[in-house]
Amino acid sequence: MKLVIIGGVAGGASAAARARRLDEQAEIIMFERGEHISFANCGLPYHVGGVIKKREELVVMSPERFRARTNCDVRTAQEITAIDRAAKTVTVLNRSTRETYKESYDKLIIATGSSPKKPDIPGIDDTDVMVMWNMSDMTEVKDRVGDGIKRALIIGGGYIGLEMAENFRHQKIETVLVQRSGQLMSVIDPEMASPLADCLVKHGVKIHFNTTVTGIQRKSIGAHDDKTELVVTLSDGAVLKTDIVLVAAGIRPNSELAVSAGLAVGDKLGIVVNEYLETSDPDIYAVGDVIEVKETVIGKPAHIPLAGPANRQGRTAADNVLGGRAKFNGSIGSSICKIFDLAVGNAGPSEKILEKEKIAYRKIYLNPFSHATYYPGARQMHIKMLFSPEGIVLGAQIVGHEGVKERIDVFATAIQLRMSVYDLQDLELAYAPPYGSAKEPVNYAGFVAVNMLEGKTFQICADAITKNSFLLDVREESEFKAGHIPGAVLIPLGKLRSCIGELPGDPEIVVYCQVGIRGYIAERILRQRGFNVKNLSGGYVTWKMFNAMQIGT
Amino acid sequence: MKLVIIGGVAGGASAAARARRLDEQAEIIMFERGEHISFANCGLPYHVGGVIKKREELVVMSPERFRARTNCDVRTAQEITAIDRAAKTVTVLNRSTRETYKESYDKLIIATGSSPKKPDIPGIDDTDVMVMWNMSDMTEVKDRVGDGIKRALIIGGGYIGLEMAENFRHQKIETVLVQRSGQLMSVIDPEMASPLADCLVKHGVKIHFNTTVTGIQRKSIGAHDDKTELVVTLSDGAVLKTDIVLVAAGIRPNSELAVSAGLAVGDKLGIVVNEYLETSDPDIYAVGDVIEVKETVIGKPAHIPLAGPANRQGRTAADNVLGGRAKFNGSIGSSICKIFDLAVGNAGPSEKILEKEKIAYRKIYLNPFSHATYYPGARQMHIKMLFSPEGIVLGAQIVGHEGVKERIDVFATAIQLRMSVYDLQDLELAYAPPYGSAKEPVNYAGFVAVNMLEGKTFQICADAITKNSFLLDVREESEFKAGHIPGAVLIPLGKLRSCIGELPGDPEIVVYCQVGIRGYIAERILRQRGFNVKNLSGGYVTWKMFNAMQIGT
Repeated sequence: MKLVIIGGVAGGASAAARARRLDEQAEIIMFERGEHISFANCGLPYHVGGVIKKREELVVMSPERFRARTNCDVRTAQEITAIDRAAKTVTVLNRSTRETYKESYDKLIIATGSSPKKPDIPGIDDTDVMVMWNMSDMTEVKDRVGDGIKRALIIGGGYIGLEMAENFRHQKIETVLVQRSGQLMSVIDPEMASPLADCLVKHGVKIHFNTTVTGIQRKSIGAHDDKTELVVTLSDGAVLKTDIVLVAAGIRPNSELAVSAGLAVGDKLGIVVNEYLETSDPDIYAVGDVIEVKETVIGKPAHIPLAGPANRQGRTAADNVLGGRAKFNGSIGSSICKIFDLAVGNAGPSEKILEKEKIAYRKIYLNPFSHATYYPGARQMHIKMLFSPEGIVLGAQIVGHEGVKERIDVFATAIQLRMSVYDLQDLELAYAPPYGSAKEPVNYAGFVAVNMLEGKTFQICADAITKNSFLLDVREESEFKAGHIPGAVLIPLGKLRSCIGELPGDPEIVVYCQVGIRGYIAERILRQRGFNVKNLSGGYVTWKMFNAMQIGT
Repeated sequence: MKLVIIGGVAGGASAAARARRLDEQAEIIMFERGEHISFANCGLPYHVGGVIKKREELVVMSPERFRARTNCDVRTAQEITAIDRAAKTVTVLNRSTRETYKESYDKLIIATGSSPKKPDIPGIDDTDVMVMWNMSDMTEVKDRVGDGIKRALIIGGGYIGLEMAENFRHQKIETVLVQRSGQLMSVIDPEMASPLADCLVKHGVKIHFNTTVTGIQRKSIGAHDDKTELVVTLSDGAVLKTDIVLVAAGIRPNSELAVSAGLAVGDKLGIVVNEYLETSDPDIYAVGDVIEVKETVIGKPAHIPLAGPANRQGRTAADNVLGGRAKFNGSIGSSICKIFDLAVGNAGPSEKILEKEKIAYRKIYLNPFSHATYYPGARQMHIKMLFSPEGIVLGAQIVGHEGVKERIDVFATAIQLRMSVYDLQDLELAYAPPYGSAKEPVNYAGFVAVNMLEGKTFQICADAITKNSFLLDVREESEFKAGHIPGAVLIPLGKLRSCIGELPGDPEIVVYCQVGIRGYIAERILRQRGFNVKNLSGGYVTWKMFNAMQIGT
């Protein structure tokens, strides 16, 4: 067995290591066009920001150590330029010597990853227009930070753009972020993204929403030609001066090689693979960012470029190359991202996606605390959960300071295993005051959803309130005074039963409190007295998130 | 419908609140023999230690606020002394007036909780021998701390004993802990508990293992009678002087009332209930610490006194009182406990329990980091997972500084949903360097277990190594020099293939590294060359935990 692997970072390196563990006799050659294999691409922004002090820490495994450990033939700075499927050979370009040669294979694993998209903008090829994708990219940016640059402009508000915004600010660099749509982090819904914008602004990042960069020009500073800067023009009319532009406007699969070899690619340009990770050629497997996988909730192909799935795919492909029949059952896109002191977690499709795919869903919002409020350090988080009308958990989004990973992983497990909201309410999660609550946020999500399905509560979301509704605030007077929904009438919950006479009989009443719990009690009181009443999901806290959000154009 | 609830803390208050939400018309009377309802019993130790500054913070809900919100008739300082099931009445003792009266019910929910056991020791009734179970207990201890006591002796090394040890140390009180068995925290296995003892000792707590208190005497200090102290004699011969003794030696269900009324109780003295939480009388339900529930992995009745299940049981009983048929499907005893800078998580039965119940199992140890090691602050944790020979996850124990709650909750979900180790390896959990690893600890547990089930690895645990084994250390020389298993031979992994000739062909080879990963690679290299080889589960780190543990007598 001669196994050739193209690409030596996450999926490729995992495949090589697993293949060797399974078969000491196989000939395994791993090609990597860069200098580094198995580097920590997810850590790159943090070295720019000085959070990760030493560059070497990002090199998880040197080629030498990998060779010693796996007895694989690791060839760095060597790029595969063609695959001859009939002859079962690859053409190799040695990037140091510029020589080319051919290497034969019995089985081939393509793990060529993905690359940042560079939008077609005048000036995009300037040397100070950079990306953040591999060690060399990072070095270029880090060198410019070392030069003492004062200003950076980021194109794109996804994971990389946001992580770079944080890390530029760690270096006291004036940072502007230009975002094509009306929200940051498009994998979540706009109202859930609104705290991210607040957080960035609080930390001194300027954001241009619904805006694109239309041109980048290098100009002299003042009368002298020897000092230049970049002048960036935006679609909103702004003209901004900056030292560097960082492009983080999405990525595309590095599937050109596969396309040239006649392998099938999908709509997202990722290589098409079956559940065994075989391409349209049974001797060729593909893993990682270069493939399309089945998004399991929707059941459609998607490009989900994440490290966890890439590593597991590498393992799976190695098993199958060596005669196994292991399956990769698709992906739900579980992710988490740190943005200054916020964590943003996501699992399964967003509401936007469910709408687009015309999949029936219901949604709830919760704003629980990370742990018992009487124990120091508890912080409020924001949860959105999407579930089917039958109660199957479809998606979850969480934004908070503490405790996000704990909950998003349980939601992710629920989504992947097709658990129901009935399962969620019964989950027995670990509790002590420093870590959680006796009524855990995940249980609470289950309680609320089951109450909805059983007709015990009728929730309304902030985006569905109409002018015809009678808005009833059941918080305490001090809370009402500190801020309330315009037009709302105050009757604190404790007085509601004795003030029933003050309520109008006719229109729909929308009752709300701070987070939805007292509102639910009030709803129950009123419904049992014959009122047409709904509880505002997530209460005033979630209403504020809806009203703070940037609406996309 | 007239519902009477006996007990107003976790289960009782949850039942009352849920019953009211479901039925505005029901007459609901909630009796509580203490002054407080719904107080934060899990937070009590932290007020003693000054972590939770204000006593009021522990009062989650005052009777007044509960009344205003739920329109329930809350009667504090009133104790139920008898239940007349034929007449459907309870006898009430008003503890303020000492008067008694009768109250009728249609349905009754017993939520009388549990009480600390006081061992039968001479001197146990001294006023400075205290417990930590309710607000008055806490006040007594807190008052003595306020007096400036310098010394405390704790009987019992479970949750409360350990939390109190930490909090006494926060107050600079010299603390001695006396533990009957050879390990702390008996819900986990001894080798997993060994870091807890290290942690306590590091923080200045003295521990007497395999020891009981045989007597407590109040004696004068020096010649004067006006100043006294407690002199405690231990079964190990020690005689210790202390200011207070805190008894945290287990609890028993407060089931006397139920027993007097002729309701069935189980072996653990908890009230027997069915899955609808009905007692042997269909008009009487019971919830919380006073009941026995089915431990779902073993399938036997157990006493699992935890806040999360108690709250959910209260909800379930209220549903059923009002005509529902909600089920409480048992408990797996998920828990987490903070001990200084350690967190200890547990879900499902321990190995001790599986042994006792003669349930077939396999076990693995892992020592992963809380997040990517290149990102600052990553800490190693220790995981033990138990699973059936068919691969069903049975139990998990985790000890670590960071990231314990995140993983124990996923294991708990897996155990409760009867997921397999194959499911674990495929879970798609959220990853970013500050929060986790691309190969998440839970995935890793799945990888190792599946490799075992598929015969790709043969693990041996530290407790099964015999003198006949050839011990092969495949770490680097520096690691070996810093500490290794006595008798081990060093061949670093990178040199193993070229040093095969140095290995003996005959006896079983036990290969190990620091945590088990390099050991696995070495095992694969050797097995494929015909050696009889096993990998030490968890490597040297877990071996050290086994060798540090206190062996019970």
